[in-house]
Amino acid sequence: MIPATKPLILVTNDDGIDSKGIRVLIDIATDFGDVHVIAPDTCRSATSHSVSVNTPLFLNKLEYRNGLIKYSCSGTAVDCVKFALNEISDRKPDFILAGINHGTNSAISIVYSGTMCAAMEGCIHGIPSAGFSLFDKYADADFTMAEFFTRKIVEQMIKSGLPDSTCLNVNFPDLPVEKIKGVKICRQAKSKWAEKFEKKTDNKNGSHYLLSGDFYNYEPDAADTDIWALHNGYISIVPVGVDYTAHQSIGILKVFENEIKI
Amino acid sequence: MIPATKPLILVTNDDGIDSKGIRVLIDIATDFGDVHVIAPDTCRSATSHSVSVNTPLFLNKLEYRNGLIKYSCSGTAVDCVKFALNEISDRKPDFILAGINHGTNSAISIVYSGTMCAAMEGCIHGIPSAGFSLFDKYADADFTMAEFFTRKIVEQMIKSGLPDSTCLNVNFPDLPVEKIKGVKICRQAKSKWAEKFEKKTDNKNGSHYLLSGDFYNYEPDAADTDIWALHNGYISIVPVGVDYTAHQSIGILKVFENEIKI
Repeated sequence: MIPATKPLILVTNDDGIDSKGIRVLIDIATDFGDVHVIAPDTCRSATSHSVSVNTPLFLNKLEYRNGLIKYSCSGTAVDCVKFALNEISDRKPDFILAGINHGTNSAISIVYSGTMCAAMEGCIHGIPSAGFSLFDKYADADFTMAEFFTRKIVEQMIKSGLPDSTCLNVNFPDLPVEKIKGVKICRQAKSKWAEKFEKKTDNKNGSHYLLSGDFYNYEPDAADTDIWALHNGYISIVPVGVDYTAHQSIGILKVFENEIKI
Repeated sequence: MIPATKPLILVTNDDGIDSKGIRVLIDIATDFGDVHVIAPDTCRSATSHSVSVNTPLFLNKLEYRNGLIKYSCSGTAVDCVKFALNEISDRKPDFILAGINHGTNSAISIVYSGTMCAAMEGCIHGIPSAGFSLFDKYADADFTMAEFFTRKIVEQMIKSGLPDSTCLNVNFPDLPVEKIKGVKICRQAKSKWAEKFEKKTDNKNGSHYLLSGDFYNYEPDAADTDIWALHNGYISIVPVGVDYTAHQSIGILKVFENEIKI
């Protein structure tokens, strides 16, 4: 068997196999390695780290340009990563790239994002992974700038690798290339989505609710956060881990050990 | 208006409004405060931090024993928390309790858990929150021990509060009360689910896959982890945050800032 000389790059997303953003990311990945593609068959935005247990999952093999095979899956973005690691090849991916997402996944939005959770699933399995998102949610978003810089970021990932147990949350502002001041390594801004429910009634669904929300940033002046970077002409990169432990609270909570007895 | 003298406790889960575990948790909460209950109308396990955007959501008001009103919702556990904060009352909950989950949410399982993400959604909104899970996934699980200690943990939460930006991931081993050595404040064990897909064919679905998996603990001897505690007769409590930033990697990644230019 001839040893592989090019890295194997897995490409996925949560916007679905036919979205514009994943086609851009496939093109970039093809410049750097052998490429496998698997993504949801429809849009699965905001499905976070969901996995489809006790649900039949369907996998479809599709021809793509230049002989590349891509797969669509009836499940979530994280299901797609799991399929890729178990079913579509014996070769473990060297890198996982997710996106390019239509819409930002900065700040607290990361917790809801299927695209970022696909990258985090890669991180759980020890694979250097990154999610890429553009601050433009529309289907026909202009990815020219995001493509230019995603290529450079992927090149750097391959050159220098990533720290252990770390994946990247990369977000692009909606600006042309010449307006970008640079890349900024940031922390996740403390923020929330203040949700609203619109009460509606129609013939198809009867009385129901539709969820929407307003983004609220608790620290708009913090120059080390991803939101600040995006609002000031930078591409934000947040290193992300999968250890959810609030280590700083372990000592404070020892009172629970002392007080709770049979 | 008479000021509220008892705390308002919101109870939710991801196993669904009719599960045994949530009925136990409602009973406990009723001992400590005014109680609101809202949970998914069916089992929504492993839906993580999913929210139902662009999907009609249905809310049903149900009578419960002792005049308590509970709501079922067609969405996920996190949708339920958002509904509770926006639609079912003008009063903001003082505490959110999620569970008691049928099945453990220790170690890496937290990332997939709807129950824990409901608690984390509370944390995002600044509400002291905890998820409770029993290491027995079956519908008729025996919650006697979990009930005994959940009551003590809730009492302690109300007495001492929780550190800022921290919620609790509480997991119970499947043991009787007298076998419990105590409560242990832990960190999340480094671990993964190594998934398997079973390829199946039947008349209803045709050719499809079913997802299952084996749990793999990278650090079985680490006595400060939740898995170690559970395997050694302790109840594990992991303080959990919603800042996913891998702070230790920020410095290492500065090379990306330096190398990536137009």
